[in-house]
Amino acid sequence: MFESAELGHALSKGEFRRIEPGLRADLLDAQYALSQDGRFPVILLISGVRGAGKGETVKLLNAWMDPRHIFTSAFDNPTDEESERPPMWRFWRALPPKGKLGILFGSWYTAPIIDRVFKRNRPSDLAREVEAINRFEKMLADDGALILKFWFHLSKKRQKKRLKALAEDPETSWKITKRDWDFFKLYDRFYAVSEEALRETSTAWAPWIVVEASDPEYRAVTVGRTLLEAMSKRVAAPPERRAKKSDAAPLVHPVDRLHILDTLDLSASLARDKYRKALARQQRALALLTRHPSFRKHTVVAVFEGMDAAGKGGAIRRITAALDARLYRIIPIAAPTDEERAQPYLWRFWRHVPRLGRFTIYDRSWYGRVLVERVEGFAAEADWMRAYAEINDFEEQLARHGAVVIKYWMQISKAEQHRRFKQREKTRHKQFKITPEDWRNREKWNAYQVAAADMIERTSTPHAPWVLVESNDKYWARVKVLEALVEALAVRLKG
Amino acid sequence: MFESAELGHALSKGEFRRIEPGLRADLLDAQYALSQDGRFPVILLISGVRGAGKGETVKLLNAWMDPRHIFTSAFDNPTDEESERPPMWRFWRALPPKGKLGILFGSWYTAPIIDRVFKRNRPSDLAREVEAINRFEKMLADDGALILKFWFHLSKKRQKKRLKALAEDPETSWKITKRDWDFFKLYDRFYAVSEEALRETSTAWAPWIVVEASDPEYRAVTVGRTLLEAMSKRVAAPPERRAKKSDAAPLVHPVDRLHILDTLDLSASLARDKYRKALARQQRALALLTRHPSFRKHTVVAVFEGMDAAGKGGAIRRITAALDARLYRIIPIAAPTDEERAQPYLWRFWRHVPRLGRFTIYDRSWYGRVLVERVEGFAAEADWMRAYAEINDFEEQLARHGAVVIKYWMQISKAEQHRRFKQREKTRHKQFKITPEDWRNREKWNAYQVAAADMIERTSTPHAPWVLVESNDKYWARVKVLEALVEALAVRLKG
Repeated sequence: MFESAELGHALSKGEFRRIEPGLRADLLDAQYALSQDGRFPVILLISGVRGAGKGETVKLLNAWMDPRHIFTSAFDNPTDEESERPPMWRFWRALPPKGKLGILFGSWYTAPIIDRVFKRNRPSDLAREVEAINRFEKMLADDGALILKFWFHLSKKRQKKRLKALAEDPETSWKITKRDWDFFKLYDRFYAVSEEALRETSTAWAPWIVVEASDPEYRAVTVGRTLLEAMSKRVAAPPERRAKKSDAAPLVHPVDRLHILDTLDLSASLARDKYRKALARQQRALALLTRHPSFRKHTVVAVFEGMDAAGKGGAIRRITAALDARLYRIIPIAAPTDEERAQPYLWRFWRHVPRLGRFTIYDRSWYGRVLVERVEGFAAEADWMRAYAEINDFEEQLARHGAVVIKYWMQISKAEQHRRFKQREKTRHKQFKITPEDWRNREKWNAYQVAAADMIERTSTPHAPWVLVESNDKYWARVKVLEALVEALAVRLKG
Repeated sequence: MFESAELGHALSKGEFRRIEPGLRADLLDAQYALSQDGRFPVILLISGVRGAGKGETVKLLNAWMDPRHIFTSAFDNPTDEESERPPMWRFWRALPPKGKLGILFGSWYTAPIIDRVFKRNRPSDLAREVEAINRFEKMLADDGALILKFWFHLSKKRQKKRLKALAEDPETSWKITKRDWDFFKLYDRFYAVSEEALRETSTAWAPWIVVEASDPEYRAVTVGRTLLEAMSKRVAAPPERRAKKSDAAPLVHPVDRLHILDTLDLSASLARDKYRKALARQQRALALLTRHPSFRKHTVVAVFEGMDAAGKGGAIRRITAALDARLYRIIPIAAPTDEERAQPYLWRFWRHVPRLGRFTIYDRSWYGRVLVERVEGFAAEADWMRAYAEINDFEEQLARHGAVVIKYWMQISKAEQHRRFKQREKTRHKQFKITPEDWRNREKWNAYQVAAADMIERTSTPHAPWVLVESNDKYWARVKVLEALVEALAVRLKG
């Protein structure tokens, strides 16, 4: 990929002076149009070899455009809040909102490439990470982001010359450290690994643009024009109209009448005294596990889904009753805030991912995409269809970083739901739990069951299994919820 | 303050069982009403001696109410992101939004009290911190927050007994460490220091409620009832109507016609060649200062205010041109997001406070409160009047933590503004900078000048001075802005 970036591309200073004013004004216009349009963010990755002028280019872009609306982020060593979360967390928190330009100095490519150069991981690890990156960028692109990835290249000879020049100039010598020379010794290895990573991740939705970086004027104009063209083209594109309609047909046509949720024995129940004993035993076990020394290296991400009145809240409270209040956070899913709406769908869940040694319990979750948004037609089919894979990726990242990811589907019968609705209407401090919307959703019972079955089918993974909970009897359900959590956590901690 | 919390208050288990169900239902109702009301947050501080059941009480509150809408935060050791900001930053980020209950385990009281007990600070330091806390809590209360501060007290004898009991029970022995016994040895000192701190901070707007903590039932019901009563009373209170009207009268009646902004010589200018040289010199000096070893222990918070078209953006760009793009973040003040509107006024500025070694440049700022919001009547008089003191407190906290706080008022003449507006309308890539609103604001020129003069008068402090910049000539203005920054930073870094 680097061949044509060693040809000696250059632009004269005179030519540059002629081009710059117009380019600058056009970029400013495009930035303003982006902001007015507000439909998508622009994500610019600036990567490449040391001494190739990445910093100068970012500075120039900030000078050309309005720096007040550029989100520049650099990724050096992670802070402790970052290193206690999955590696991608720090990038999610740095994503620009829709309508803005984000410049990322260093990115999700840095660690995989460096690890491979220093042989801290295997070739298969790089391949896996490359694939994960492609899926991540696809998700951003599907969500509307314009992604441009610049790689600043220098031939070996030119990089050596450049590092020497920087080291000898008293103005810049502080920039060049022993680490730079150590890296330079591995030039050929960096070349090979980077080329592989770039080749495998230069996609239609997030292409790499390799720029020969030895001539500052050529470099600057290339980046500026590429960015300008991509932004202008996108802003000029007509808004995409994706048909949104309620979808109640199962993804796989049911040839027989067997349905995963129908296999549950909803008559399962537990007597009050047995419940009390079992509950106390499981709560005690859970409390002990949170004091296990390895828990400091893990997290718990628990997800509760189910029909209205299935007992999610009650089950959650039986978990939290066993926990120190400092250890957990419950995230009830409400309408997204405007900051959340300006970001990719999963952003509002990523932001609550727990630190090590903590629980996050989601009361409803990212599965809303393939449940309520599918059934009610709030999301286009293409969007909820891709959500299955995006969700699996997200949960895999959590699990890889030490999270016990556990997901509960709490199943009740339609008759039991009716009974509970009526009861809520009668109980003073439960009245607020029942709204006309609940009755409306109930009319779509079958469509929700179909969506839930598809969801369970497509997102049950070894690292993040669904636990199906027979919930007509609250005692039975709560004990099952706790048992499953205790078991999953014990396996992980003592594994 | 602790006398009546050593009387042996207790509640029988039977009595508790009789009271609990009603109290619980009432609390749940009140929590729901709070959420529906949405006008204010409830901030609950849970403090007191070790072994007094703080954790159990928080757990119980979470069990009684809906834990999904309680924001529980604990403050142990600060993360590195926290310790790189002023001490209050971590508390600001944990404040509950309006309509929600936040329980704070440990608080802004912990460090001042412990530091004083261990004599790491002087009595005068504690007095100063106590005063700062009062002002902080007043600000929260003025902003609408309901603040309740519980202090769990145990007599010396009872604390000893309690620690022993915890240490001997295999279920709880892990909770008691050597540190607890070390603290216990200082019981009398803790008693004296805490009592002083509590007495000085028990205010009408944020009262301390000392609870005798030896009896779990008494403790729980006392907290529950106090909370219930305060919440119910507040929700029932009629919405406060504060008259909002445009205010253009100076705070001090002008006896003569001297005006701080009139003293500026707006004819000050710089020739192009002198400008170029001076600019290059100052930018170089600034770049060098950011590489000074002590800069890693400091931050820069720069604020730009001025009439429309005064040249704020241009001046900011001349600063950032000298900086590595990784080092700064520009915050252009736009309409608050809904997450920001659910918090106290200063919250949206606190969230962008820089880490050590970084700049945050605010393009317009918290001064909007005493400028546009005053002049246009967006804020009630009581609110913008208190803002002067709140802002001084905020900036003092920044400065104490190593920030160079520098504030620019860029002054142009009314005629010069007119010329620039006209010019903007003609220049292609500047057209978006001029809107009908700019013309409307211009009509209130005098009111803005009055508000600016009051602002400068009341918020010019040694730790955060205003720099008045004659800005009719852009060259002059930009060089003056840079010079002031370089000087302030040099003084701070080089002592």
